[in-house]
Amino acid sequence: MDMELKAIGTISSSIRERAKCPKQGHEGAPDAWITVKDQYQEAMDGLAPGQEVLILTWLHEADREVLKVRPRGRPENPLRGVFSTRSPARPNPIGLHPVRILEVSGNRLHVEPLDAIDQTPVLDIKLSICRENI
Amino acid sequence: MDMELKAIGTISSSIRERAKCPKQGHEGAPDAWITVKDQYQEAMDGLAPGQEVLILTWLHEADREVLKVRPRGRPENPLRGVFSTRSPARPNPIGLHPVRILEVSGNRLHVEPLDAIDQTPVLDIKLSICRENI
Repeated sequence: MDMELKAIGTISSSIRERAKCPKQGHEGAPDAWITVKDQYQEAMDGLAPGQEVLILTWLHEADREVLKVRPRGRPENPLRGVFSTRSPARPNPIGLHPVRILEVSGNRLHVEPLDAIDQTPVLDIKLSICRENI
Repeated sequence: MDMELKAIGTISSSIRERAKCPKQGHEGAPDAWITVKDQYQEAMDGLAPGQEVLILTWLHEADREVLKVRPRGRPENPLRGVFSTRSPARPNPIGLHPVRILEVSGNRLHVEPLDAIDQTPVLDIKLSICRENI
């Protein structure tokens, strides 16, 4: 089965290093811009300022071989399977980022807060599952 | 960049056809079992009955070329870009399913409700972003 992902865009953020990236968006992550590739711009139709959306990213610096981690990287926390955490280290390092749209400008989307480093590939933009749909 | 996904498991569900699959889990989806591949079982450590988790799937029957849809497939709804919907049709058809764990049995996980058809590949299991983390 073809399970090869396509980047639909890229993140521009002031966060340049993993060490400076908050663990969750609501823990002080900054705003960021998403530039959607021209061939996918049509799929943005309907996005508007004020909407709550979910950004899916490929956490390109994550270790895909790690199966157990200490939550939040704290040495005092016992090892746990990655499926019972939100660690970026996991077999398929897909990041989920609930954000609010601040501005839509052509193929660019201004959002906040976004806990992902600069140049992270974007996989998808979806209506939020937390507010409208649950 | 390598963005090839690995199936970490498979869904066993009584839903056998897309036409019979609810649009969202809370719209009458049944319980289902997830069988995790042996090599990833260690990553399940910490999962327990009662937890709310998010299952990520590869919606293997979705059309990856469609950029606009009529929400919920209703002809009276105007066309909208897929990024402002939760349609399975999108460049990267990753499904997000908030579920509750009913039982953990070795490498198998019993969950509900799960709006995905039988044999859907599972990509990831994560702590829910809706309850604990937001």
